[in-house]
Amino acid sequence: MTKNLILIQCKDQIGLVATISRILADHTLNITSMREFVDEQSASFFTRIECSGLLPSLKALQIELERELPSKAAVRINPNQEKKIAILVTKEYHCLADTLSRHFFKSLDAEVCCVIGNHSNLSDFTRRFEIPFHHVSHENLSKADFENEIADILQNYSPDYIVLSKFMRILSPEFIKQFENRIINIHHSFLPAFIGASPYRQAYERGVKIIGATAHFVTNDLDEGPIIVQQIIPVNHAFSVNDMVVAGKEVETAVLSKALTLLLQDRVFIAGNKTVIFE
Amino acid sequence: MTKNLILIQCKDQIGLVATISRILADHTLNITSMREFVDEQSASFFTRIECSGLLPSLKALQIELERELPSKAAVRINPNQEKKIAILVTKEYHCLADTLSRHFFKSLDAEVCCVIGNHSNLSDFTRRFEIPFHHVSHENLSKADFENEIADILQNYSPDYIVLSKFMRILSPEFIKQFENRIINIHHSFLPAFIGASPYRQAYERGVKIIGATAHFVTNDLDEGPIIVQQIIPVNHAFSVNDMVVAGKEVETAVLSKALTLLLQDRVFIAGNKTVIFE
Amino acid sequence: MTKNLILIQCKDQIGLVATISRILADHTLNITSMREFVDEQSASFFTRIECSGLLPSLKALQIELERELPSKAAVRINPNQEKKIAILVTKEYHCLADTLSRHFFKSLDAEVCCVIGNHSNLSDFTRRFEIPFHHVSHENLSKADFENEIADILQNYSPDYIVLSKFMRILSPEFIKQFENRIINIHHSFLPAFIGASPYRQAYERGVKIIGATAHFVTNDLDEGPIIVQQIIPVNHAFSVNDMVVAGKEVETAVLSKALTLLLQDRVFIAGNKTVIFE
Amino acid sequence: MTKNLILIQCKDQIGLVATISRILADHTLNITSMREFVDEQSASFFTRIECSGLLPSLKALQIELERELPSKAAVRINPNQEKKIAILVTKEYHCLADTLSRHFFKSLDAEVCCVIGNHSNLSDFTRRFEIPFHHVSHENLSKADFENEIADILQNYSPDYIVLSKFMRILSPEFIKQFENRIINIHHSFLPAFIGASPYRQAYERGVKIIGATAHFVTNDLDEGPIIVQQIIPVNHAFSVNDMVVAGKEVETAVLSKALTLLLQDRVFIAGNKTVIFE
Repeated sequence: MTKNLILIQCKDQIGLVATISRILADHTLNITSMREFVDEQSASFFTRIECSGLLPSLKALQIELERELPSKAAVRINPNQEKKIAILVTKEYHCLADTLSRHFFKSLDAEVCCVIGNHSNLSDFTRRFEIPFHHVSHENLSKADFENEIADILQNYSPDYIVLSKFMRILSPEFIKQFENRIINIHHSFLPAFIGASPYRQAYERGVKIIGATAHFVTNDLDEGPIIVQQIIPVNHAFSVNDMVVAGKEVETAVLSKALTLLLQDRVFIAGNKTVIFE
Repeated sequence: MTKNLILIQCKDQIGLVATISRILADHTLNITSMREFVDEQSASFFTRIECSGLLPSLKALQIELERELPSKAAVRINPNQEKKIAILVTKEYHCLADTLSRHFFKSLDAEVCCVIGNHSNLSDFTRRFEIPFHHVSHENLSKADFENEIADILQNYSPDYIVLSKFMRILSPEFIKQFENRIINIHHSFLPAFIGASPYRQAYERGVKIIGATAHFVTNDLDEGPIIVQQIIPVNHAFSVNDMVVAGKEVETAVLSKALTLLLQDRVFIAGNKTVIFE
Repeated sequence: MTKNLILIQCKDQIGLVATISRILADHTLNITSMREFVDEQSASFFTRIECSGLLPSLKALQIELERELPSKAAVRINPNQEKKIAILVTKEYHCLADTLSRHFFKSLDAEVCCVIGNHSNLSDFTRRFEIPFHHVSHENLSKADFENEIADILQNYSPDYIVLSKFMRILSPEFIKQFENRIINIHHSFLPAFIGASPYRQAYERGVKIIGATAHFVTNDLDEGPIIVQQIIPVNHAFSVNDMVVAGKEVETAVLSKALTLLLQDRVFIAGNKTVIFE
Repeated sequence: MTKNLILIQCKDQIGLVATISRILADHTLNITSMREFVDEQSASFFTRIECSGLLPSLKALQIELERELPSKAAVRINPNQEKKIAILVTKEYHCLADTLSRHFFKSLDAEVCCVIGNHSNLSDFTRRFEIPFHHVSHENLSKADFENEIADILQNYSPDYIVLSKFMRILSPEFIKQFENRIINIHHSFLPAFIGASPYRQAYERGVKIIGATAHFVTNDLDEGPIIVQQIIPVNHAFSVNDMVVAGKEVETAVLSKALTLLLQDRVFIAGNKTVIFE
């Protein structure tokens, strides 16, 4: 029995579940797991269906679903299971090390096609895993030239997703547009608290009792894209800024790891500036 | 538009979602939320469906579903929304106070029909909320007589659920059988650690770094019934047994409160010695 | 053996622990627990000492400590153990019910001297516990008159602390000044995210994956006072604003309860716009 | 200014803090952080003191402290800051990868001197970091011979601690005795629940709603040694045994990482079958 995955995002209307499940039954596909959500505010319908059975013609099923569903329905059947990700880094190793270790032991659900750093200090580590490391310094380059050089490298690899793994440069709208809905960032605070630079210093100055991290899609607005995963850890008055930085690395690593798993298992839908996630 | 709730538990087979959703569509019911789960180990199917639409004949729908679903399917349509609970207590107030406050402000999803205590010290508090308190002392009574007296009181009120809210007497299989799958207990440890008496002392002696609480259905085996909710809090070497007791009250209250909410909103299925919960 | 509690906040200098512990030993007081913290940024020293032994003259000890410690040291020996709190409410019951239940069963570490509401709907509940309820409507009153009326009531009771238990009016600097460092608020977000009104709606619109609550001292800047306790709970795309409100009540109750315990057990120091807390 | 670390564990008696702080002041050492704990059950005193100042003679200070403190006091001044750890593995990579990454980037607070595996599949990964990997198969060897071979390798490296990083063989009392209080294990459950083999299968069968991990010292009794760190994650009915295994790896990695940090920063005291930890 083949396992199939079907993802649908469309305008909501009466009887969608009945329509979809009837079509699947007609194709002798048995639903083993179905998650659906209706966002009443935007009248949008989302479903993620795991079903078993032989898929005679993926194309026929796609056409039939699109014909019977509301117009402009986004239907994905068995999306690419051999996804590729590119990783952008600056100097911090913790998120990169976690991703590369998972990749090495084949538990990442994706291939890491390359690592690009605006500093070179993560080059040695990366190459120990036989993954190409490209050093693109931002120094002595205009922002446009810097980004073009990165974009050129990325286009060569055709990654499904680009992971900003503690990449500390702000990307321009032009760059982001080239990879719309495909750039993921890990921000070192529980957004929307402490947007922008030095969130741990901001947290220290404010005297908060929890710090956190947020994995989100990157859009034109800094730290404003759809949130995928957030988590926190407790801190107290005895934490210096540096103690927060050290403690924060743990939660950043965990949050990015979780977000990548959700994303690479096709569990994340983008819905405006939010996400719908079927864990 | 009327909102309806349909709960189905049956043997799994191919096409169940299609069958159910077709029947609902035939009755012009629109599915607004559907959760389903297949337990592959026992080949059991569970679904909880919220649907909107006028229900012309609840009985006709029930019959049609039962006819088309595997035999012995348990189908519940719009289960009792005016549930009644009875509460059994000993001396500790924290869980009782939380439940009675919610009841007083009509956010409990149930009516508290009575409180029964084997001590009398919670009588004054209970009666301030105009809820009957029955004092049934276990002293000078055989276990059978003690339980019969409680059972008689309970039968008068016909509660949907009986909540052991820090009730510190072990109930006999005969008593439990009368209220099968309807007795909920809050145990002051993360089961299966520290089954039985004095879990906080056991936790203290073992030097654990987390303590917890478990809400579960009561079956014949002490602390072995299906688990509904568990949660924990961190402790450290500086916690005395009594500090753990005090800290534990918070998590006990939270866990029981959560379990009652899930139960009273018909989100909990019993599946052998486990639960399936659609949050 | 009498148990004594000594709290000291002063400028840091070399040998403070040695000085303090020598003075206590001279008075034949045995330190059973000592917590200290040096805030290097402000060169401030904080200590909380539990010691056992007969205290011959509290005044002599106080004078000796103040003489040997840096000038302007704040020394408190056995602070008032019979603290009084006044509670200000609007319409929501959950925090109030928790506090009054603890008070009723004598586990609050304080006496609730009165409840003041700008609406009257919590009057019945409060009076069931034989606690005075004062209804001071903000309607048809200037802000100054409204606050003066409340202040007059409060002055009658001389509370140690004033707890804004979901009190939804913003207090003026003049009011706050009268009760400096003695007003505690529970805010329904993890500050500094979602300052101000409707934090749950803000959280919903932003699509966050965690919501939280913050207990803090009230200062002139809205939601900017020293933070005592923060905690969060996970949410997801399926939470409506109202679901967040309901779920948030749990964490608000827990956070305020924890903050009151810390405060009433004299575990909280105010240090600028932060707190130092010895749990 | 030199930073010094002093650790003392001794029988409790009146005036210990005064005695210790006076001696330190006599040596012109300024206490910047002091944590102490008295275990009243065993009348034991524990303290961890960070102090700044030039240490003229470490030996003189040690002798003076031992002379003035109760007999058999364990006094450690500036314990070895260049600790070495050896890691024992079987097949699972996640804890090893985390530790080796930290080691590579010099954030482990220790040197990893070697990895020993009873399988060879982690050899390639380990050697990429230029760390010696020794394959000692348990097959065709008596338990005694197997352990002797490992012990011989360990003796060569003289590690401060031996980390069982998902090492799936039970060690004999004879082996453990050679490295008393120096062997750390990560167990994949929140002990004492699910002692022994297949804890995730046990957790699955029991239908628990949380799973966890425990880092502890290894003593003769399986999974009964002093606990250092425990943490949990929520699970639900939809988790298969394998899903629990996968989710559990995250918490195992985090718990072992935290335990190593505490241990290597000399924050952990062993007190009978418990630990006292100054975070």
